[in-house]
Amino acid sequence: MQDNVTDILKTIGYPADLRQLPESQLVDVCTAVRQYIIRECSAHPGHFASSLGTVEITVALHYVFNTPDDRIVWDVGHQAYAHKILTGRRERFDTLRQLHGLKGFPTPVESEYDTFAAGHASNSISAALGMAVASHLDGRKNKVVAVIGDASISGGLAFEGLNNATTHPNNLLIILNDNRMAIDKNVGAFSKYLTRISTSRRYNQLRWHAYKTMRRFHLMGDALRRGMIRFTNSIKAMVSHQQNIFEGLDLRYFGPVDGHDVVSLVHTLRKIKDLNGPKLLHICTVKGKGFEPAEKDATIWHAPGKFDPDTGERLTEDESNKPPRFQDVFGHTLVELAEQDKRIIGVTPAMPTGCSMNIMMEAFPLRSFDVGIAEEHAVTFSGGMAKEGKIPFCNIYSSFMQRAIDEVIHDVALLNLHVVFCLDRAGLVGADGPTHHGAFDLPVFRAIPGMTICSPIDEYAMRKLMYTAYRNDGPWMIRYPRGRGSRVDWRCSLEELPVGKGVCLSDGKRADAPAAPVSKAVLSLGPIGEEVKKAIRLAEAQQKEPEGYAHYDMVFLKPLDRELLKDVFEKYETIVTVEDGTLNGGLGSAVLEEASAQDYKGKVLRVGIPDEFIEQGTVSELWKLCGMDAQSIANILTA
Amino acid sequence: MQDNVTDILKTIGYPADLRQLPESQLVDVCTAVRQYIIRECSAHPGHFASSLGTVEITVALHYVFNTPDDRIVWDVGHQAYAHKILTGRRERFDTLRQLHGLKGFPTPVESEYDTFAAGHASNSISAALGMAVASHLDGRKNKVVAVIGDASISGGLAFEGLNNATTHPNNLLIILNDNRMAIDKNVGAFSKYLTRISTSRRYNQLRWHAYKTMRRFHLMGDALRRGMIRFTNSIKAMVSHQQNIFEGLDLRYFGPVDGHDVVSLVHTLRKIKDLNGPKLLHICTVKGKGFEPAEKDATIWHAPGKFDPDTGERLTEDESNKPPRFQDVFGHTLVELAEQDKRIIGVTPAMPTGCSMNIMMEAFPLRSFDVGIAEEHAVTFSGGMAKEGKIPFCNIYSSFMQRAIDEVIHDVALLNLHVVFCLDRAGLVGADGPTHHGAFDLPVFRAIPGMTICSPIDEYAMRKLMYTAYRNDGPWMIRYPRGRGSRVDWRCSLEELPVGKGVCLSDGKRADAPAAPVSKAVLSLGPIGEEVKKAIRLAEAQQKEPEGYAHYDMVFLKPLDRELLKDVFEKYETIVTVEDGTLNGGLGSAVLEEASAQDYKGKVLRVGIPDEFIEQGTVSELWKLCGMDAQSIANILTA
Repeated sequence: MQDNVTDILKTIGYPADLRQLPESQLVDVCTAVRQYIIRECSAHPGHFASSLGTVEITVALHYVFNTPDDRIVWDVGHQAYAHKILTGRRERFDTLRQLHGLKGFPTPVESEYDTFAAGHASNSISAALGMAVASHLDGRKNKVVAVIGDASISGGLAFEGLNNATTHPNNLLIILNDNRMAIDKNVGAFSKYLTRISTSRRYNQLRWHAYKTMRRFHLMGDALRRGMIRFTNSIKAMVSHQQNIFEGLDLRYFGPVDGHDVVSLVHTLRKIKDLNGPKLLHICTVKGKGFEPAEKDATIWHAPGKFDPDTGERLTEDESNKPPRFQDVFGHTLVELAEQDKRIIGVTPAMPTGCSMNIMMEAFPLRSFDVGIAEEHAVTFSGGMAKEGKIPFCNIYSSFMQRAIDEVIHDVALLNLHVVFCLDRAGLVGADGPTHHGAFDLPVFRAIPGMTICSPIDEYAMRKLMYTAYRNDGPWMIRYPRGRGSRVDWRCSLEELPVGKGVCLSDGKRADAPAAPVSKAVLSLGPIGEEVKKAIRLAEAQQKEPEGYAHYDMVFLKPLDRELLKDVFEKYETIVTVEDGTLNGGLGSAVLEEASAQDYKGKVLRVGIPDEFIEQGTVSELWKLCGMDAQSIANILTA
Repeated sequence: MQDNVTDILKTIGYPADLRQLPESQLVDVCTAVRQYIIRECSAHPGHFASSLGTVEITVALHYVFNTPDDRIVWDVGHQAYAHKILTGRRERFDTLRQLHGLKGFPTPVESEYDTFAAGHASNSISAALGMAVASHLDGRKNKVVAVIGDASISGGLAFEGLNNATTHPNNLLIILNDNRMAIDKNVGAFSKYLTRISTSRRYNQLRWHAYKTMRRFHLMGDALRRGMIRFTNSIKAMVSHQQNIFEGLDLRYFGPVDGHDVVSLVHTLRKIKDLNGPKLLHICTVKGKGFEPAEKDATIWHAPGKFDPDTGERLTEDESNKPPRFQDVFGHTLVELAEQDKRIIGVTPAMPTGCSMNIMMEAFPLRSFDVGIAEEHAVTFSGGMAKEGKIPFCNIYSSFMQRAIDEVIHDVALLNLHVVFCLDRAGLVGADGPTHHGAFDLPVFRAIPGMTICSPIDEYAMRKLMYTAYRNDGPWMIRYPRGRGSRVDWRCSLEELPVGKGVCLSDGKRADAPAAPVSKAVLSLGPIGEEVKKAIRLAEAQQKEPEGYAHYDMVFLKPLDRELLKDVFEKYETIVTVEDGTLNGGLGSAVLEEASAQDYKGKVLRVGIPDEFIEQGTVSELWKLCGMDAQSIANILTA
């Protein structure tokens, strides 16, 4: 088997090769692709369960459609590994998610088969619709297919796309990849029957010809035509005992069908691909399909790390002597706060495991709200709760928070409501790459009046800042990175910190060289302050003449600590600002604004993310790339 | 009549007074409120047609519900004038939309009856849901009502709210104010019949009691209960020949009912207000109801300016010798470009008249896309079109663009797609106030890699920048304010400008005093540069010793003109930056960053919007308030 598997994959460099195979071999192709994913992901960690669920639809799509001329737009690309394997990238799969390696998500930079960006959920329908309408305007006949999961389709952007799908002529096909069975529980014999008549070419031709004939005789306007579609839809609704939202939006709906029966998928796609107008095919799949442990617990196997492909045993590390992840400090501390004050509420849009809100959800299920992929709603809903006296801690990854900037401004800050925004995954995130880096939150939030913005250097500060945010009214933003902090023993007591006050971590005086001058100060924000500490040790080791370097943890970006800065401006000739965020408008710019206001005449050097989209890689590789690692900072200090 | 009208309104200071009246007087109250709105708006311009459409539902809501303990959340507050009149603000109505006057939108700052911010569309359901869930958590019995129009409900945020409405226990009532009849054309006899049985207490009690009885005997789980609701719904769908999206989302749906029959509305609201769980009442209203000219053309009468309340004649000014509005320069120039190149496309989310995309829509209907209230979709859809070789000009007001920041980053900039974002209403907008000021776009867009950002000082520059944006690949942002430019004769030829290059408007040398020193330069961005010209004239007039002031129009914020700045840093001791945007991270900060990089030791003074939410008023009043008017700038120059 293993050999057959390898052999068949070797014959498929690109989808054109796949399309040469007889239908009878497609099941083998799927088996081969699935085995390849399991084997590769066991050694080179990535997203796993989602891609196992989409093997058959991927094979069927590339078999039926003429890719890359026909466009497939993947929504959230971690379901697209099979797609990558079948489109010329199989042999590079062992570089997945590594620096300069294969990207974890589809991207046009990598392949012409990747038609759009696919890191943030819910964008596929709108993007594909744009492509389909453009095609139609140019009189081209190529097809556009969007593949979207049942979780992504709940995002507002996806709904806006659906709502617009029928307003302009196009041939868009939306594949709804339903792997939770959540949208439709009533999958039964009659549904299958409906699918069969719906996807039968004869049935649809009949309906279509009837319409065209009548139209020719001016007997049927668009209103009546819609009425006819609605009428057939309502029969289906009657029989299936439920409303169909897609048909309510005038989309032709087909399904649900078994998403793991590749031959049947091929037949269905062939039947519906040439139907005029936008349409939706609902397929049911199993996340983790074909790998038993993953089928049993899709959450753990969403991105499992390394594992044994034969036994399914996950290779976990001993974590007992490591500092906790910031997200876990968040989760546990939130529960402690919630125990003290029943006004405290937790809100997160579809990232309870990723941000450890699940700890709160277990402790206080009625006061925790996972609203699904709906960042905008998460923020405005938090605003409504705050208006009634609750204190929501709303946790959204920094890069996903970009979805809800208006709501932060209009529905929270403008009303000066007490909502604590916790931005996990702030700064460079590593292997997820440019779509996921939390690079832009500092300038964006800094522009918002009344916003308090802070970032903890370590777990102690994290806990104290959460407590301080709880104790002080108005909108708050606490940002912290993916990954671990620096304190193994992290459960300090909860104390209030002075709002808008930074801390002098070191005045630069050296015990080993008491006479060494100190003319430079480093100002940092957040856990990158630990990197600064290393940088100072490195600089002291590599300098020719002994020199000391002062180090301040700003803690708050806003309000900025003007008194601390006054002191710094008076004492030091050179200031180096260090932040894990874009250089355009963040901490360094805020310091420059204040330096100008206070007429500081010294030098200000800024370290942070440069003005470009940063690649994937380990965080330390990326910091080096951006000149934000300890050695680069040390070089600036000793220059 | 007029006297009766005045008399009845005088008896109603607050809703508690309204609730003392017998039902039989409610029609008179509505007449009185409507007359009041017509009379006041004829003299004090504001939003008009929307509020005429909601008179009856407003009266009915305050009559049936115990406001302010029960909460009414208005979606887009320009439908809320009747609400303001009935909640203690009638006598201040003549200050509407003026500096320090009554706000154009509901805001909790003004009244406890205003429960939330209501300037940006589609937020009411999420906010009201937050309130309703908070109420439920606290065991309070008060009700929460969201009132949302059929246009607003198409926004993604509204869908996210609807989609979450049933996930947590609450008693939310959503009023769908359908004034275009667009969602549902099939309003007929049977629909009314359905409404009657749906809203009949007896029918609902029956269904409810049946459910509770069965539940008591553990005979019905939640799944079966939903099945039962779905079954009744599907009968309704069958009979009405259409799918009901709200019922697809498990919301109980009532309607459609006549939104201008106040007594019937009162009865309906009484019947449904105590039903458990979230529900939606669909009312049909006429925008402009009760004022014939407005009923005939609701678009013109959305915000008509001053008019004669008796004849309906609008008091328009002679515009023949005035410079055009920037938005019209946009509209006409886009058509000229579109005539040259068929790749050019126009996209706007629901603001074709407001941004003058309607000019393009008339000239090229197939290449113009009004996608409704759906900013996110507008951007991603543009991205999809650009990916297929189109060049979309996507026009969104600056403050509404806040809704689509992630899409600009992820679906356009990351892919380096050629989309030209035109941000109308950038900077302070005047009477619409803090929800509508375009204050934050500069720092937000400046943070985005690869974005070209520019702003025209006048109509010539506007046209040339549009042409330049068309001729140069990648993402562009052109921002310009609400209102008129400065050139009556505005149709210059279309020429390409050098990207990232500013212009020296004046070197400060004075003809009247050739020996006057020039040590100060003003750098401005956008049409506020005209205010700077005035400021320089004022400064020259008020100074004691003759002095000249250089003036540079930066044209581009990004890429920033480093060569121009090098020259400026060499020549001048003081630099004043002037921008119509927040001071946090905009032009002034960019100049400071470059000044630091080039080691400039002079002074940089920054003029712009301070770090607070700015009130309503005329633009010139607000500029004065913010120290951005010519006199304030002159004072800085002569200080």
